[in-house]
This record gives sequence, structure tokens and C-alpha cells, in this order.
Amino acid sequence: MSNAQQMLETHPQAFAVDGAAIARCVDACLECAQTCTACADACLGEEMAAELAKCIRLNQDCADVCTAAGRVAGRQTAYDANVSVAILQACAAACRACGDECERHAQMHAHCRICAASCRACEQACNDLAAAIA
Amino acid sequence: MSNAQQMLETHPQAFAVDGAAIARCVDACLECAQTCTACADACLGEEMAAELAKCIRLNQDCADVCTAAGRVAGRQTAYDANVSVAILQACAAACRACGDECERHAQMHAHCRICAASCRACEQACNDLAAAIA
Amino acid sequence: MSNAQQMLETHPQAFAVDGAAIARCVDACLECAQTCTACADACLGEEMAAELAKCIRLNQDCADVCTAAGRVAGRQTAYDANVSVAILQACAAACRACGDECERHAQMHAHCRICAASCRACEQACNDLAAAIA
Amino acid sequence: MSNAQQMLETHPQAFAVDGAAIARCVDACLECAQTCTACADACLGEEMAAELAKCIRLNQDCADVCTAAGRVAGRQTAYDANVSVAILQACAAACRACGDECERHAQMHAHCRICAASCRACEQACNDLAAAIA
Repeated sequence: MSNAQQMLETHPQAFAVDGAAIARCVDACLECAQTCTACADACLGEEMAAELAKCIRLNQDCADVCTAAGRVAGRQTAYDANVSVAILQACAAACRACGDECERHAQMHAHCRICAASCRACEQACNDLAAAIA
Repeated sequence: MSNAQQMLETHPQAFAVDGAAIARCVDACLECAQTCTACADACLGEEMAAELAKCIRLNQDCADVCTAAGRVAGRQTAYDANVSVAILQACAAACRACGDECERHAQMHAHCRICAASCRACEQACNDLAAAIA
Repeated sequence: MSNAQQMLETHPQAFAVDGAAIARCVDACLECAQTCTACADACLGEEMAAELAKCIRLNQDCADVCTAAGRVAGRQTAYDANVSVAILQACAAACRACGDECERHAQMHAHCRICAASCRACEQACNDLAAAIA
Repeated sequence: MSNAQQMLETHPQAFAVDGAAIARCVDACLECAQTCTACADACLGEEMAAELAKCIRLNQDCADVCTAAGRVAGRQTAYDANVSVAILQACAAACRACGDECERHAQMHAHCRICAASCRACEQACNDLAAAIA
């Protein structure tokens, strides 16, 4: 059981949405934020860094949006469905764009292959939680 | 001329959207993120903090989403319109929810009055930039 | 093997410090950032939220500093030891303060008990990595 | 009067440190975080991006640490001097490293010249506030 799940189980309030779906989304957002930060850094360390500018840019955006989405999704007190769904949709959009770009050079760069998989998993978890909320 | 505007004017690449609209949005996101962080803290310092839980919660969400939106909107290299519009829409949604809540106790708490104004301005700037992009 | 560890193993450059110590620190920072965000939210949802103001405040600080430390520690390209050690020390200080405060009501609130353990683990991982760098 | 200053003046609690020094530091952290985010992006958009890897790396670190420092410094409720001083010192270290690096190509890249000035101002404001606290 992840820490996110444990924290949800000890929260003083009941919540409308399935706790397991929330925990999966929070964990996926955190992992994707870290993986994208690391992929931007690995791309920047490649000799061909200038050709990876689009990947670095999308990695940075995706890391920032995933960080915000993971924080919002992890809060249950005085929950606002509109805010939650909007940031989950933005996170899914960032993960889709970044995952598509990483996939393009997954054959050449193993860090992009791992990052693409992390983006796909996070996109799915955000879409699942948004669907459970709406 | 704000720092954000100066940084845009010295960027090596041309961008499709009006630089002044970008700078207004970036500046509004940063200011709203700070104001919401400070409003959450001020609410937490009130004797009636427990009754302000919804305001504190929305302040925190709004600060996190504004921080992400300001970072994404401030980047011009290898720009992705879908990602930008999605996070701007999420930011406008967070600002609307937080601005509405702050306005409810603007008479009682001056920090909520200032914060509501900051949220309204940021919501507008995000909507304007999203419209210019789309 | 965590995602952070996998990303380090596929990085194009060699690094001076043991990759396993870096990965442990990055993972601990991310987990602590999330746990502190969730603990602030759980405290805010308690009826006695106003009495937990100090815990909520330190949770928020710790979440913000851990997020920054995890990002910096996860980057290996063009590494600057002074910057890395300084943010790791700041993170250890935030974890110590937040862990101490959470421990004070660990008997009453299970979320504070889990959070205190997460803060202790992160403090240790940051101190270990700072010692390996210096 | 900046928004940060206004928010401090409407805070329900008294604070030990001069409000003007706090507001200057918060404003400097926010501005430096944005300028560093924009400088990383501008460097990435240069044809010689690969040669600017060290600048991009330090810009990202500085943006992350400034964001955390600005948030912590902007909170006054249940204030912990140790946590505040530690993150202000880390921020000053990040600003020094990033300012030094940006200054090295300030002649060639106007965005680095502006960013170096922003880093110097933020380093000073963090050191001033840390001295006022300690």
C-alpha cells in the first residue's frame, strides 16, 4: 500500500470518489513529474541536446502540470469538483503531448522510452479519476 | 515594463501570440499564486481558521495551479498549443472557484478581498491568452 | 527498482556520487512532499483544525522544500555541489521541524504518525546524500 | 505597494521581522523564479543550446529553489526560524551560482544579462531577510 493510500485511509472526512482511484492518480502524477524532470535533464546531457529542445520543453511543462495535479488530487477537504476535473484534464493533455514526443525517440534514448511509459500511465490515471468525479 | 515582458523581448525565437498578452498572463499567474499562498496563511492565522477550511483549500489549489500555468505560459521554445490552452483553462477554473469563495468573506477579512481581486484578474488574463492561442 | 533509479541508469553522463544514494533521496523527497501535502489537508479537515495551525504550516513548508530538493537532486547534468548541498540541508531542516511537530500529535492523529515517519526518512536521506557530495 | 506587502499588512498576526524586508524577499523570489524559468527557455531556444547546458541546469535549479523560498517566506503563521533561514540560505546559494553562470554570457545573450541581475537582487534580499531573522 503506497503512502498516498495510507494517508487517504487516515483522513478524517469521507470522500465521494473511490480512494484507490485517487491514490493511483496521485502516485502516477508524482512519478511522472519526477520522470519528466529527469528526462529533461538526461536530454540536456546528450550531445545532441539542441535537437531535443521540443522534448525538454514538453518534459518541463509536464513535470510542472503533474506536480500541481498531484497536489490538488491529494487534497480531500472541502473538495471542488470543477477545479479537480480541470487540472486532471490539463495533466492528461500534458502527458499525451510529452508521451507522444518521448515515444518518437524511444529507440534512441532509453530515458525517453521510460518517460513515455510514465506519461501514458499518468494520462490514464488522470482520465480515470476525472471520469469518476464527473 | 515587467521582467516577464523584458525576458520575452530578448527571446531568440518569434512567437505566434502577442508578447504583451503572454507577459500579462505570466505576471497575473505569479501574483495570484503568491496572493493565494498568503491568503491561505492569513486564514490559517485567524481564530476562526476551522470555518475558513474551504477558503484555505481553494487558496492552496489555486496557488499550485497558478504556479504551473505561469511556468508553462512563460515558455516559448517548441510551444504546444494544446498543453498551453489546457493549463490556462484549468487556471481560470481554479481562479474562479477561489475568487468566488474569497469574495464571500471579503467584508470580514481584508486579505480575502485582496485575494478575490487577484483571482479575478488572473482568471481574465488566462482566458484572454487562451483565446489568443486557440 | 524505482523509476528514479531507472532514470539515473539511463542518463548519458557519469556522476560523482553513488546513484543509489541519489535515487533514495529523490524518492524520499517526493514521498515526503506528498505525505506533507496530504497531512496538511487531513489536519485542515479535523474539527480542531485551528489547534493544528502549526502542523499545517510546517507541512506546507516541508512539502514545498521537499519538492524543490527532489527536483534539484534528480538532475545530474552540469551539477553544482554548492547548490545541491544547500537545498539538501534546507530540506533536512524542514523535515526535522515538521517531523517533530507531527510526532507531538501522532497518538491522536494517524496521519501525523505516518507523516512523522516520512519526514524522518527524508531527513536521513537528505543528510546521507549531502554527506556523500561534500 | 506590492501585493505581497498588502497581504502582509492584512495578516491577523504580528510578526517579529520587519514586514518590508519580508515583502522585498518574497517579491524578489517570485521575480527570480520567473526570470530563471524564462532564461532556461530562451537558452534552450538558442542554436547553441547544447553549449548552454550549465546555464539551463542552474536556471532550473534556481527557479525551483526560489519558488519554494518565496512560498515559505510569504507565510507568517506559526513561523519556524530554522526552516526559514535554511531555505533562504539555499536560495541565496542557488542565486549566486546561477547569477555567476548567467554573467559569463551576459555580453552574448541579453536574457542572461537580465537574469544575472535578477539573481543578484534575489541573493541580496534572501541574505537580508535571513540576517533579520537570525
